[in-house]
Amino acid sequence: MQYPESLDRLSRELSRLPGIGKKTALRLAFGILRYTPEEAANLAEAIRQVKERIHHCNICHGFTDLGTCSVCINQMRNQRLICVVEQPNNVFQIERSRVYQGVYHVLLGALSPLEGIGPDQLQIRSLRKRLEKDGADELILATNPTVQGEATAGFLQSELVDLVPQITRLARGLPAGGDLEYVDEITLQEAFSGRRGWHD
Amino acid sequence: MQYPESLDRLSRELSRLPGIGKKTALRLAFGILRYTPEEAANLAEAIRQVKERIHHCNICHGFTDLGTCSVCINQMRNQRLICVVEQPNNVFQIERSRVYQGVYHVLLGALSPLEGIGPDQLQIRSLRKRLEKDGADELILATNPTVQGEATAGFLQSELVDLVPQITRLARGLPAGGDLEYVDEITLQEAFSGRRGWHD
Repeated sequence: MQYPESLDRLSRELSRLPGIGKKTALRLAFGILRYTPEEAANLAEAIRQVKERIHHCNICHGFTDLGTCSVCINQMRNQRLICVVEQPNNVFQIERSRVYQGVYHVLLGALSPLEGIGPDQLQIRSLRKRLEKDGADELILATNPTVQGEATAGFLQSELVDLVPQITRLARGLPAGGDLEYVDEITLQEAFSGRRGWHD
Repeated sequence: MQYPESLDRLSRELSRLPGIGKKTALRLAFGILRYTPEEAANLAEAIRQVKERIHHCNICHGFTDLGTCSVCINQMRNQRLICVVEQPNNVFQIERSRVYQGVYHVLLGALSPLEGIGPDQLQIRSLRKRLEKDGADELILATNPTVQGEATAGFLQSELVDLVPQITRLARGLPAGGDLEYVDEITLQEAFSGRRGWHD
């Protein structure tokens, strides 16, 4: 017995989503089949609408439903402190933590020669232009702590060092709530080398 | 900073899916935002289409894109052996195992008084009619091994015992590939009480 074609198609479309394998996609497709027709129409419409309404901010390239995002136009934010992240969702993650009062620049990826992603495929030229035009006091490199993220941060540091007085990167160390037993060697090395005094 | 409204809406719609919490829904929404407009349109269309094309089989209530499903119309299947399951996806699961050559009856749920699901909310009356009209040699109760599934099987057994010569249920025991350490007590009790000779 084959799955009906339209069910098969839906689960194939769903399996393109990040972190969704074939089995989960099928489970989600069955979930959608149990929706009322109205709920299913709402989901389809929400997908259509999100692609229609959400654009990249014309300054930082984060997601927004306006031309310029609410962070970039907010004059209460420190416009001379720029945090560089890989993806638009990183902006929301950092905003949720309420720890940061500067603005952002979203690269829309990380350097990955094997996947054909070089500097020209990322929003690096626009970052350079932004620094040349408006200047900044500090650039915080908040790319992911992965091989690609590290390579991207290293590249940006060497490319932009003349354009901004201070380039920093996020601290490395133990994640809050973690257990030493499950911490990898590199994180442990970083946690040791970056250790601070008790009252710092 | 708030999430843009359309992003928020999409993640709310996605979080209605089974097993999808708020955080996963947001991750999926960001995944959809990274789709090309064509990919997003394909997904929305697949959702629309699946709801339009997939119906419940008019005999077994499983999912099909025809009036009667390919199992129910297949005269090579044993039409006098009926396996009762809770949900349409259970049919596909059993079909994948290629172990069963009879037909199905999908209840579309399980008894759950707390959720207001009684016999009338399930496809029990249609099962009774089916047995009265066409008869059957055996009814296999393959409801889930949960409290609700067990209660449903018990109810069906007492309701239908006069209509079919043999009512069975699936064997209970150790799942293949499992580790004794992680098996719950009830499963272990069932595995002992249902133990078989080496050559059975």
